[in-house]
Amino acid sequence: MNDASHAMSHAMSAPHFDKLIVQEVAPRDGLQIEPTWVDTADKIALINALSTAGFTRIEAGSFVSPKAIPALRDGEAVFQQIERHSGVIYVALVPNLKGAERALASRADELNLVMSASQAHNRANMRMSCESSLIAFGDIVRHVRGSGVLLNATVATAFGCPFEGRIDEDRVIGIVDTYREMGIEGVTLADTTGMANPRQVARLVARVLERLPALALTLHFHNTRGLGLANVLAAYEAGARRFDAALGGLGGCPFAPGASGNICTEDLVNLCDEMGIPTAIDLEKLLVLSRGLPALLGHDVPGQLAKAGRNRDLHAVPEYVLQI
Amino acid sequence: MNDASHAMSHAMSAPHFDKLIVQEVAPRDGLQIEPTWVDTADKIALINALSTAGFTRIEAGSFVSPKAIPALRDGEAVFQQIERHSGVIYVALVPNLKGAERALASRADELNLVMSASQAHNRANMRMSCESSLIAFGDIVRHVRGSGVLLNATVATAFGCPFEGRIDEDRVIGIVDTYREMGIEGVTLADTTGMANPRQVARLVARVLERLPALALTLHFHNTRGLGLANVLAAYEAGARRFDAALGGLGGCPFAPGASGNICTEDLVNLCDEMGIPTAIDLEKLLVLSRGLPALLGHDVPGQLAKAGRNRDLHAVPEYVLQI
Repeated sequence: MNDASHAMSHAMSAPHFDKLIVQEVAPRDGLQIEPTWVDTADKIALINALSTAGFTRIEAGSFVSPKAIPALRDGEAVFQQIERHSGVIYVALVPNLKGAERALASRADELNLVMSASQAHNRANMRMSCESSLIAFGDIVRHVRGSGVLLNATVATAFGCPFEGRIDEDRVIGIVDTYREMGIEGVTLADTTGMANPRQVARLVARVLERLPALALTLHFHNTRGLGLANVLAAYEAGARRFDAALGGLGGCPFAPGASGNICTEDLVNLCDEMGIPTAIDLEKLLVLSRGLPALLGHDVPGQLAKAGRNRDLHAVPEYVLQI
Repeated sequence: MNDASHAMSHAMSAPHFDKLIVQEVAPRDGLQIEPTWVDTADKIALINALSTAGFTRIEAGSFVSPKAIPALRDGEAVFQQIERHSGVIYVALVPNLKGAERALASRADELNLVMSASQAHNRANMRMSCESSLIAFGDIVRHVRGSGVLLNATVATAFGCPFEGRIDEDRVIGIVDTYREMGIEGVTLADTTGMANPRQVARLVARVLERLPALALTLHFHNTRGLGLANVLAAYEAGARRFDAALGGLGGCPFAPGASGNICTEDLVNLCDEMGIPTAIDLEKLLVLSRGLPALLGHDVPGQLAKAGRNRDLHAVPEYVLQI
């Protein structure tokens, strides 16, 4: 029995499951590819509502070039005007030192840095080599040190690259080690275009958890090929406890038009509720928020639960049944 | 460690996975709720194409009242005109003795009978009580005996009912025992409206497999709440080996408008291919067929893989990357 399957058996037979921590990323990873402009006030209202739904972590925006991602050009206003709830960490994505300076000035609690495991994807996404990204990370780490602001770094395309295909697991492990040696506390393994499978996830999570504590590791899955929640379970069973998810399943990848985006927060919380895995998140509040997304964005969203309702939301027996 | 998690550990640590058998149900469970009429010739062409893609079981149609399900009123013509491939079992759904007589006259290889675990759902779906359904099953069993035609019976709403909610597991086990005592070889546990969760699936599958061999049990999952493939993995890890799935994720439930239908065949086969679980199904052929569905049916379908492509279908690196 390998480590991953041992962890799985343990989780399945345990009388009580550990808490699963959901980091809500819709305000950043969800909105960044939306073609419709979402007003700053609507972004703030969404984040404020999410803050009351039980999340302890919300990726609330980014400090990237407004030319690169116009949908999130109001990062300062968002971070300065949202209500800060105690116990909630408000995370900002930053691509470089200038972004980090803006995020600190706007009182982000944590910075999320991103580099792809694949050179081709890092060049396409960040417009620089992996080596240049790591140099930029070093500048950010030195700038942030002593400020009390937390640091997390993401390994994008950790489970596969749409340009290069398979990613060597040793390369991912090497990047995780580099991040940690640089003094970055948190690490996210991201399946940026939904190429991961549960067997691969169990194996890689088990290897990474030999290097850092479970609460320092986040898994970021996309549902591009329908495997997002299966991958969450495999990672959880292998010992992972922190997961990104987006309200409504927002987000996506420009290389898979029409395909699903991030795993859907309310679908994930429903899975946890049904299985008895605690999340402390109020599913009813999430459903209200998710059902407001089509009006906000002008299109249907991929999440299933908002359409189907929870198991407990029973239907009335049809009239004709009463006569049988 | 309970039986279900023991089976799971065994499957995850085994060097080679057992074959997973996919029964394609799009021609029956997929098409039955389509509002657009699909010509008999198109149904036959679809089934003939599926027969060459590696399936060993295809639910090809039903022999129900044409008033109840007009979309499948051409069951006789379909069964009489499809090409019969050796090694492929062509299954017909039948609701009563009259349907069984029609199916036998049309040379169906196997009959699938359906009763819900929930009284309210059986009355809504079959317009009779569970007791009346079992009497009808007895008539069918006696009629079919000695003909060489196989029998399978489905427990619908085995994991939850949209009217009654939770279903007592002992009731499901009791129905399985009744089916077997009646001389029905195959049993399907159906999550008719997508209410199952992986923990529940592992537990119920383990109990049922104490009663019948793995190859007599089929799991039928819907993706209504996004958990279909996670449930497949839980069932497979608990020892189940046969699964229903529908090309494109066709099908659905009138009580969850807009929600997904059956688990999607090509998404399931992709999961198996990526994990190393053999299916003997040609995924490339499936993708061609799935991508033809929107033109045939006049609407988009829920399957993800047909939109995203396989992992191996790499994308060209954008032009600007070459200058970095």
